[in-house]
Amino acid sequence: MEKIRIGIAGYGNIGRGVELAIARNEDMELKAVFTRRDPSSVKIHTENAAVMHMDDMLSMKDEIDIMMLCGGSATDLPVLGPKIAADFNTIDSFDTHARIPEYFENVDKAAKAGGKIGIISVGWDPGMFSLNRLYAEAVLPQGSTYTFWGKGVSQGHSDAVRRVDGVKNAIQYTVPVETAVDRVRSGSEPKLSTREKHLRECYVVPEEGADLQAIENAIKTMPNYFDEYDTTVTFITEEELKAGHSKMPHGGFVIRSGNTGEEGNKHIIEYSLKLDSNPEFTASVLICYARAAYRLAKAGESGARTVFDIAPGLLSAKTPEELRAGLL
Amino acid sequence: MEKIRIGIAGYGNIGRGVELAIARNEDMELKAVFTRRDPSSVKIHTENAAVMHMDDMLSMKDEIDIMMLCGGSATDLPVLGPKIAADFNTIDSFDTHARIPEYFENVDKAAKAGGKIGIISVGWDPGMFSLNRLYAEAVLPQGSTYTFWGKGVSQGHSDAVRRVDGVKNAIQYTVPVETAVDRVRSGSEPKLSTREKHLRECYVVPEEGADLQAIENAIKTMPNYFDEYDTTVTFITEEELKAGHSKMPHGGFVIRSGNTGEEGNKHIIEYSLKLDSNPEFTASVLICYARAAYRLAKAGESGARTVFDIAPGLLSAKTPEELRAGLL
Repeated sequence: MEKIRIGIAGYGNIGRGVELAIARNEDMELKAVFTRRDPSSVKIHTENAAVMHMDDMLSMKDEIDIMMLCGGSATDLPVLGPKIAADFNTIDSFDTHARIPEYFENVDKAAKAGGKIGIISVGWDPGMFSLNRLYAEAVLPQGSTYTFWGKGVSQGHSDAVRRVDGVKNAIQYTVPVETAVDRVRSGSEPKLSTREKHLRECYVVPEEGADLQAIENAIKTMPNYFDEYDTTVTFITEEELKAGHSKMPHGGFVIRSGNTGEEGNKHIIEYSLKLDSNPEFTASVLICYARAAYRLAKAGESGARTVFDIAPGLLSAKTPEELRAGLL
Repeated sequence: MEKIRIGIAGYGNIGRGVELAIARNEDMELKAVFTRRDPSSVKIHTENAAVMHMDDMLSMKDEIDIMMLCGGSATDLPVLGPKIAADFNTIDSFDTHARIPEYFENVDKAAKAGGKIGIISVGWDPGMFSLNRLYAEAVLPQGSTYTFWGKGVSQGHSDAVRRVDGVKNAIQYTVPVETAVDRVRSGSEPKLSTREKHLRECYVVPEEGADLQAIENAIKTMPNYFDEYDTTVTFITEEELKAGHSKMPHGGFVIRSGNTGEEGNKHIIEYSLKLDSNPEFTASVLICYARAAYRLAKAGESGARTVFDIAPGLLSAKTPEELRAGLL
């Protein structure tokens, strides 16, 4: 079998998840991991794959079919995404929702100039959740869509808590409010405030002698991050944090309720995820879009794409005939 | 706005649902309904749309962009599907799973010869459920997928009960077994027999003086339809049937549980539908695929397609820019 040759740019949680996902897809192989660290300091799991410096990426242009961009959305991808898309077919998980249109344009220009495909904003949100918002709205044009996240760790909110004076370490869980989810599932199309949809639970390891009351206040009143939510702050030890909060579970729900016909018959469409490992699942989504990018590139297509542009069959290792016979 | 001009071939439950769905999509208009009955005997809801005999369809070739094939899968579509696809872009809900590969080939040949697009097997199963089986399996190659149907009316099983000696009228509900659904949701990937997954509930109006015990036995032991299920038979009056069982609700679940990484982290993907009206929802899915067929035909494509071949963005009335900014 001809294998799809994958490169990984950035070896953090997502990059490691991509490596593990490649091992679970027989039609793929990892060729190289690219890092900004000293390559000799980075140990990977895959035999026969190289570890190289990010600056040496171009030397592998003919050895790699798809480059998985596993950097962060805040500062890495806006620069690296368009740059790498000029020379490689790329997949990324760019998730700064507000900046997606601008990012799409930049990747599109670079990828078209280089004759490459760049699929952006892949994962579960944006990604699988986006697809479900789109399908549900297309089928039921009259209705309301709700997205709930959690229970799961928000990296951004955890970082914000860690920046508070007197905080040594912390983790933050986003928790959907069950009664709100139930109201949405009933089809009543409720108007829900930010506070009514999600709770925020913080587990905080304080510095020795820190003012716990001051920490709690600082967190609960933090603009943008916590002030619009009901937030709980629980102080724990570093050992408790490691023992009870080292996994990265996540998940959530996309629910659309809408109506049809003259009598307004009600319909509820719900998509939900319950994930033991957020980065491993995200990486698993990324890697099946690598298969789609490979096929599109082979067909001579170029430019930026999102999950909305990719025919679902392109994601599967099965042939169209197998899919029609087995899954339709 | 240029509207997509729709024809409906067959004016039963699905055909009427399509008419109602067109009224809820601003970019579409109904041009004509085609029937095998006397057209003067068929009353439709839409003003300014024609009712014509099926034999006169070709006279409308230049007036209709997409023909919605709303006949049955058993005898109508295998003949009509390829025949009409030679002259019109078509959408159908062909749902005889075992015969899909053969039907696809026949529509494909006819549509290619005529330079038309034919999207087959659209609806929710096959259709939305198929998409979710595919997406979930592509993301989690190691795992198990389960489809549960109901609670909802099975037309085929209701018909089978009505054919039993002494039965005047009847309706059959397919009911998923809750404990089985819960076991699947737990991620344990259980092996489930047919009997463990679904119950069958029959509501039967007997002929006067009929042998009720004989009816019940005949139903419960009917091969293929009921013998492999736990079946309940409840005798009711014609009035009770009309009062309590005249709606056509349905729904179900597609659940995949699988694992990733070296430790086998578990993930559960669940898609569920709760539908007040099975035909209206099915028709709503069909009509958004008409939009996709229209766009593909405009782009010069031809041949048969399934939901697996259609990029999700083609289903939405929104532009790609609007979708990226609003739903991604």
